[in-house]
Amino acid sequence: MPGDDAYPVSDKTRVKRKPGRGAYDKDTVHSILDEAFLCHVGYVGKDGHPFVIPTAYARVGEKIYLHGHASNYLLKTMKTGAPVCVTITILDGLVLARSTFHHSMNYRSVVILGTAEAVTDAAEKNTALEAIVEHIVPGRSAEARGATGPELTATSVVSLILSEVSAKCRSGPPIDDKADMLLPVWAGVLPFGSLTGIGQPQPDPLLAPGIEVAPSVANYKRP
Amino acid sequence: MPGDDAYPVSDKTRVKRKPGRGAYDKDTVHSILDEAFLCHVGYVGKDGHPFVIPTAYARVGEKIYLHGHASNYLLKTMKTGAPVCVTITILDGLVLARSTFHHSMNYRSVVILGTAEAVTDAAEKNTALEAIVEHIVPGRSAEARGATGPELTATSVVSLILSEVSAKCRSGPPIDDKADMLLPVWAGVLPFGSLTGIGQPQPDPLLAPGIEVAPSVANYKRP
Repeated sequence: MPGDDAYPVSDKTRVKRKPGRGAYDKDTVHSILDEAFLCHVGYVGKDGHPFVIPTAYARVGEKIYLHGHASNYLLKTMKTGAPVCVTITILDGLVLARSTFHHSMNYRSVVILGTAEAVTDAAEKNTALEAIVEHIVPGRSAEARGATGPELTATSVVSLILSEVSAKCRSGPPIDDKADMLLPVWAGVLPFGSLTGIGQPQPDPLLAPGIEVAPSVANYKRP
Repeated sequence: MPGDDAYPVSDKTRVKRKPGRGAYDKDTVHSILDEAFLCHVGYVGKDGHPFVIPTAYARVGEKIYLHGHASNYLLKTMKTGAPVCVTITILDGLVLARSTFHHSMNYRSVVILGTAEAVTDAAEKNTALEAIVEHIVPGRSAEARGATGPELTATSVVSLILSEVSAKCRSGPPIDDKADMLLPVWAGVLPFGSLTGIGQPQPDPLLAPGIEVAPSVANYKRP
């Protein structure tokens, strides 16, 4: 039975396929949510067709926040309290086995189910927006101009409580059939940091002369 | 009006928010599909709740193929002809503006709507499975042991025709308000190759001595 440090397992969140890869403890879920910043949000459209839209998020305690322009259809849908699924996936590597059948990927993913809620309280909205900026580029809030009143009005924020949540992870080398172990085939893992391919900062062509690269950019790294 | 080289625009696929970022031509859609290999599949569960699951895919002509273990719930759902949304997202960079409000991301994404179909023809199933392996690790099919009959039986493959499809892309530097252009704030793009953070191959700890890194691994790169 999960304790305080784990999410309760529901029929919807229980990992069915490869249940050994499922995890429900808060540490695992939080660490994945804090490393990534892109999620894919699923909702059911008016005609019953599912839609999946990528967007940014940040975690604050036991909530995640998503934002967007007030005219954004996804945000408008979430504000109505429609059921959503927010999925976060970090690809860690390609798993190359001796047989094509046992090829796999190393990954860490989180699936959050629930209904979002509009954030209308001004203080919480500010906290959420700063959390999103700081989650994606730590230190950036102090560098860039903050939001004005009209900009805040033009921005919608919603929250989703972490309650129906599960993680699913695979790590380690390939698992081949015993009979294949002597095949002369290279097997192993090709690490594939889905969030580590960071290149050199490209200044805005319109950047005024004499502005050095910001510390948030020069020192950028993911956890 | 779109020609042969573009997908017809439907009310469901038309990019509403920032329509200037929408693209419907096959070249753009194919190039995104061919660069990435992870997608997020949305479907509506039995109780009407949306679910979003990450999985691999490959494009062959005007179809994408997805595969999984025959007992995989997502695959079983797709084989029933349930409506799905398959979304592919490539993150190209973080766009750092002079104001937090105009921060953005450079990305290329594709949204595919439709209903999948089970691939039961043996020849097409083989083609699809080889396409998935070769799409993710070019050259690997010739290196690893191919699938046996029971392995093929244990693997489900579905196809989804590219017909209701749209792409959405952002590129280039930040777009700041005129009044902010003289702020002493570094602005520009931090390139963030979501698929380029490739590390050194890690051999299977159980790898037999004398097996060199496979060419598909040593020469690995994404388009």
